[in-house]
Amino acid sequence: MARRRLEARARLVRAARDLMARKGVGATSIQEITEAADVGFGSFYNHFDSKETIAEAVMAEAIESFGTAADRLAEVLEDPAEILAASVRHAVARAAADEAWGWFLVRTALTRMGGLRGGLGARLARDIRIGLERGRFEANDPLAVMLTAGGAILAIIAARLQGDIGEDAPERAATVVLSLAGLRAKEAAKIARRPLPAISAPQDAGTGENDPAGGRRRVRSAP
Amino acid sequence: MARRRLEARARLVRAARDLMARKGVGATSIQEITEAADVGFGSFYNHFDSKETIAEAVMAEAIESFGTAADRLAEVLEDPAEILAASVRHAVARAAADEAWGWFLVRTALTRMGGLRGGLGARLARDIRIGLERGRFEANDPLAVMLTAGGAILAIIAARLQGDIGEDAPERAATVVLSLAGLRAKEAAKIARRPLPAISAPQDAGTGENDPAGGRRRVRSAP
Repeated sequence: MARRRLEARARLVRAARDLMARKGVGATSIQEITEAADVGFGSFYNHFDSKETIAEAVMAEAIESFGTAADRLAEVLEDPAEILAASVRHAVARAAADEAWGWFLVRTALTRMGGLRGGLGARLARDIRIGLERGRFEANDPLAVMLTAGGAILAIIAARLQGDIGEDAPERAATVVLSLAGLRAKEAAKIARRPLPAISAPQDAGTGENDPAGGRRRVRSAP
Repeated sequence: MARRRLEARARLVRAARDLMARKGVGATSIQEITEAADVGFGSFYNHFDSKETIAEAVMAEAIESFGTAADRLAEVLEDPAEILAASVRHAVARAAADEAWGWFLVRTALTRMGGLRGGLGARLARDIRIGLERGRFEANDPLAVMLTAGGAILAIIAARLQGDIGEDAPERAATVVLSLAGLRAKEAAKIARRPLPAISAPQDAGTGENDPAGGRRRVRSAP
């Protein structure tokens, strides 16, 4: 029973994701979503309050999927500083390429998704912790550094989305985060500009830059 | 005509501020606001869409009023590092004392209020710029440092409101911001713990910690 419920919810999110990626949130109706998901129209409301709620679930999945893909950086990179820099660069670049994703991250990362406890925040904290444990990073106040790194990424993403910082935002964000983690300015800047390994997202939630319908998603969903 | 309109709007915001501080947003009705403001009920909608919209205007004024009060720190302090530290500490402490204010800041500072262009973000950028111009601060990438400082303050406020960082959050936030501005760790920590000059807010928007009805405002308005 609980499993069936979860399956129906997953089908709804998948259908919403495909429709919203193709047509945009505004042009997608709840009826289209339930039809594509093969779920009764009324059952939609057992899972979601509104189209906005399911759009948020789609976004949350897109962010989680990005995080899972970014996790694989640890397999191709060894240096904790390179791993951290690559994660930061990928997150800022993705946000710039997909405004809806970026604004959703900015709006939710400090509140609903629980700061360093959930989602990308927890991953960031982990990447910093690993570097500290291995003696690669240094911080008098690790918690403050983790929070600052998270806040920095969000503020730089918001500035990028508003056109206040240029295309090199990913590298500048990585430089400042590595400096926070105790690297000297010169080394931080160097590592932040190394060739960036790709991250693969086989189960990408369809709102990413690899999505052929990408252009449609460039809808400013905030402020 | 335009002036009258502004006056009516100001009366509405003032009445909403007083009522909401005393009774909370939920228990305040639009009718009470218009009666207290001596404005016709229907005219309310010439100025605001809903109770939520006027509550946001109240919060925006409270933040602006805080910023104006914090501006006076430059009159009692000389060192740009002390001015920056005191501003950061006051903002974090105020957010912890007034959750609605804190969450409003977290939710809006990166989006609606325009990052470093408006409100407290613009003040933070100015305080950092002054320190850079006087040679007290040092930064390879001033814009990234300003954004990071802003993001750090918001992330630490959110963590404080969620109980993830302790009562020394204001001093830890100030330490990390001063380090970002190029101060050595030891000096940053020392300045961040100096006795803090009070800031006075004669026209405080009534949701601050000086408000006798303070307890009522401790309503979590986000996430």
